[in-house]
Amino acid sequence: MSTSGAHQHISPEASGALCPRFHRAVELIGRRWTGAIIRVLLAGPRRFNELLASIPGISDRLLTERLRELEHEELVARRVEAGSPVKVIYELTCAGAELKESLDALGHWAERWLGLPPE
Amino acid sequence: MSTSGAHQHISPEASGALCPRFHRAVELIGRRWTGAIIRVLLAGPRRFNELLASIPGISDRLLTERLRELEHEELVARRVEAGSPVKVIYELTCAGAELKESLDALGHWAERWLGLPPE
Repeated sequence: MSTSGAHQHISPEASGALCPRFHRAVELIGRRWTGAIIRVLLAGPRRFNELLASIPGISDRLLTERLRELEHEELVARRVEAGSPVKVIYELTCAGAELKESLDALGHWAERWLGLPPE
Repeated sequence: MSTSGAHQHISPEASGALCPRFHRAVELIGRRWTGAIIRVLLAGPRRFNELLASIPGISDRLLTERLRELEHEELVARRVEAGSPVKVIYELTCAGAELKESLDALGHWAERWLGLPPE
């Protein structure tokens, strides 16, 4: 391999250096429960209690906290539908929905390579 | 869509329920620095100091700890090459290398959607 022009337009993969955006993304979806919440919302909008029931082990408090973070990151939007009682619905934004490819690939990888975690 | 047979072979996406394997995978790659280390190793085997230089902000101690975890999870293998001094080289196992699709997709997503983190 030539080393000339070694400083021009080397991709993170080729140089082995790390893109800060990638680093932020992986820590974002890897935060405890965050990937799980996004994956459930990829199936469609959900009410708070539906999310709670879909993710075994998460607490009320943690789900609230994670949803607020995801709203702040603009990956999840909170929508209130009029009625009695009002319905509060969580759904992915465009940015959130575009995580599908990566999370699906990770799901396939997990099916192929990971054992089930101990109970 | 028919609702008959609704309890047969429903994918996690369709049901909104969460696969424990997926949950484990997302927490595995999302652990602080883990995704970063794997992404650097996707470019090829690296010595410890090369890894250290490729990941701004990681410490000796944390890199050692994460590499041990990744070895334990069988995503990374540690290879010792004879010589003086001996070379210790880290490389992805097959399982580790197959994370490429998911991490590449996440990298593309990050380029598209994330701003740079504040310095």
